[in-house]
Amino acid sequence: MATINDNYLKLKAGYLFPEIARRVTAFAEANPEAPIIKLGIGDVTEPLPEACRAAMITAVEDMGDRNSFKGYGPEQGYPWLREKIAAQDFQARGCEIDASEIFVSDGAKCDSGNILDIFGNQNTIAVTDPVYPVYVDTNVMAGHTGPANEDGKYGGLVYMPITAENDFTAEIPDQQIDLIYLCFPNNPTGAVASKAHLKAWVDYAKANGSIIFFDAAYEAFITDPELPHSIYEIEGARDCAIEFRSFSKNAGFTGTRCAFTVVPKSVKAKAADGSDVELWKLWNRRQSTKFNGVSYIVQRGAEAVYSEAGQAQIKALIQFYLENAQIIRDQLTAAGLAVYGGVNAPYVWVKTPDNISSWDFFDKLLHNSNVVGTPGSGFGAAGEGYFRISAFNSRENVNEAMRRITSAA
Amino acid sequence: MATINDNYLKLKAGYLFPEIARRVTAFAEANPEAPIIKLGIGDVTEPLPEACRAAMITAVEDMGDRNSFKGYGPEQGYPWLREKIAAQDFQARGCEIDASEIFVSDGAKCDSGNILDIFGNQNTIAVTDPVYPVYVDTNVMAGHTGPANEDGKYGGLVYMPITAENDFTAEIPDQQIDLIYLCFPNNPTGAVASKAHLKAWVDYAKANGSIIFFDAAYEAFITDPELPHSIYEIEGARDCAIEFRSFSKNAGFTGTRCAFTVVPKSVKAKAADGSDVELWKLWNRRQSTKFNGVSYIVQRGAEAVYSEAGQAQIKALIQFYLENAQIIRDQLTAAGLAVYGGVNAPYVWVKTPDNISSWDFFDKLLHNSNVVGTPGSGFGAAGEGYFRISAFNSRENVNEAMRRITSAA
Repeated sequence: MATINDNYLKLKAGYLFPEIARRVTAFAEANPEAPIIKLGIGDVTEPLPEACRAAMITAVEDMGDRNSFKGYGPEQGYPWLREKIAAQDFQARGCEIDASEIFVSDGAKCDSGNILDIFGNQNTIAVTDPVYPVYVDTNVMAGHTGPANEDGKYGGLVYMPITAENDFTAEIPDQQIDLIYLCFPNNPTGAVASKAHLKAWVDYAKANGSIIFFDAAYEAFITDPELPHSIYEIEGARDCAIEFRSFSKNAGFTGTRCAFTVVPKSVKAKAADGSDVELWKLWNRRQSTKFNGVSYIVQRGAEAVYSEAGQAQIKALIQFYLENAQIIRDQLTAAGLAVYGGVNAPYVWVKTPDNISSWDFFDKLLHNSNVVGTPGSGFGAAGEGYFRISAFNSRENVNEAMRRITSAA
Repeated sequence: MATINDNYLKLKAGYLFPEIARRVTAFAEANPEAPIIKLGIGDVTEPLPEACRAAMITAVEDMGDRNSFKGYGPEQGYPWLREKIAAQDFQARGCEIDASEIFVSDGAKCDSGNILDIFGNQNTIAVTDPVYPVYVDTNVMAGHTGPANEDGKYGGLVYMPITAENDFTAEIPDQQIDLIYLCFPNNPTGAVASKAHLKAWVDYAKANGSIIFFDAAYEAFITDPELPHSIYEIEGARDCAIEFRSFSKNAGFTGTRCAFTVVPKSVKAKAADGSDVELWKLWNRRQSTKFNGVSYIVQRGAEAVYSEAGQAQIKALIQFYLENAQIIRDQLTAAGLAVYGGVNAPYVWVKTPDNISSWDFFDKLLHNSNVVGTPGSGFGAAGEGYFRISAFNSRENVNEAMRRITSAA
């Protein structure tokens, strides 16, 4: 008899976003006239940059002529894209990253799950609480955890609380951790990390032979020149960190699909015989075997992000969403709420008033203001009493949502 | 210390295609004037159908207007694509497959590797010999095998020889197999399966609680009306088979990237507690967690395959490659070689003359005729003494390659 991967049965059925959808649908059916505004999921709303669209149309046309037609491309991505990424995203910021260390993919979510393929099953793994649920669920699926407890925490994972008390940046552990997930600017809290904070993590990782999974999907929202965009701006990170990047949030590629993962050739981990193995070799083999590269058309769209026009266009997009975030921060503050994030990040993390629960605040906002956000407790037990509001929407919707919330306050 | 997945170290370093590339490069450097024609890798060469290109250009334009802009799509694919696939590829052939059972992805290679995520580690697994290497390598990576022996066979896998003696169709095993990989039309041999052959497999799977992984990436090349295109044309297959399909070979999407996997809701496997679990639920959870859907633009291109114009255009493409295959068959037969496949399939499987080895024949063809093919032994020990020639090339190149081979014979 064929058997299943029983670890899947440990996954909690009620995932955050389906439960939100259920409550919103029930409310909408009971109140069909209610003009609901969704500031929940972190999905972009504004058009794809013109430079990207023009490049993709040319690429589609390339496919119509057998002389410029493209069949299978390199599984790692085309050199012309990898080289621009390495030069402009890394070398221009002083990071010693080579084009051969860039692996183009169809999504940072995919990569942050797939990366576990190349690691052993006995590693000690740490995530923050609250956390992007994919980090946790992919470890559950891979059999790296026990079952979940009442709080939704899985046995075997180390949860590092991030709250207002520690500025939403996890404290360096006093125990051995082998694989560490960090996300800055943070999803869901909007917190950012200073170079000093990342340096402490890199020092920890080097001292403990740990690997840092650094999710920088939101780096484009950093405007403060003191803040690092990449972990490779920190000395020593080339020896201990893998970085995940995406075109989803800087260039609006959530529906177009392109991302990349950086695996420096100097990052190593231990084989069972105690020898050091380059993770680059394993990831290259994994991608060559289980992936066939990103669409040529989409890669040409991503390449255009690095053109002069593309850079100006994504800067304007980011500026637009950051202004939304500023409006949300200002209005909620005026309504008497404590707010975090939303500066150098597209997420505003709100303390619920009067210590009501995240889900009670969700229901209150939905019923009183017809605004949908995301309950902080959905991201982990330490998110209880917080609420995430996303800046990804039109200016009109953001203004209207804030008007309703402040007038209801 | 972080540890690696040691199973990766079992993978043989010298994968088939890198070794081919090495020999071709060495020859080309020594003979810079040699007009090499490559009939090795199974990659398409002709332009993308006009219907697909037109649909993708419209889709890119959709992305330029916030009213038609698409952010995250359903991880399983857009309903308008899943419905057309279910209706035209399955229901039109009498297969009881619902749109909700179609999972759109970026590649059949990816899916045929990723599918192992949802299965346990104790399953007995059978592959044919010769075989598409990805089936084997992904099982090695997942820890389902021991190390490789001298023949390149991994311990723990069951290899089912396919040779001229059994018409390149594996015999039904007399032992318990839990997961079975079948590929028809076959890569690399070009063999096809009758309904009776597939029926025997479905009966075996149902009797043994096995799951069949049916790779139908080349089904579009079937012109014989008696041959099944899908395993779901066989009664009972809905209870025991998962099918992999691709737009790579029918519509030339190798560089555009779109495929799909069919997981009927009636396929079940055992949990550790002995209960039956729907594989659809597990795959749906896997894809929702570790995948973010295929580019909207590419899905619109795939949808156009099902339009009247698209259907006519892909039919012409398939016809073109099949004519190439026929020329290859005819010419090699005229040159005194025994040939198989190449009818209802884009691959011609050639017996090497005078029982010389696959690699000796490779070298002979490269040196004497400047033609590159693929040594059969690269696909498995039972492929020794065979050679694969691909019909994916221009008519001019196919004619010229055959002229050289026949005149050298």
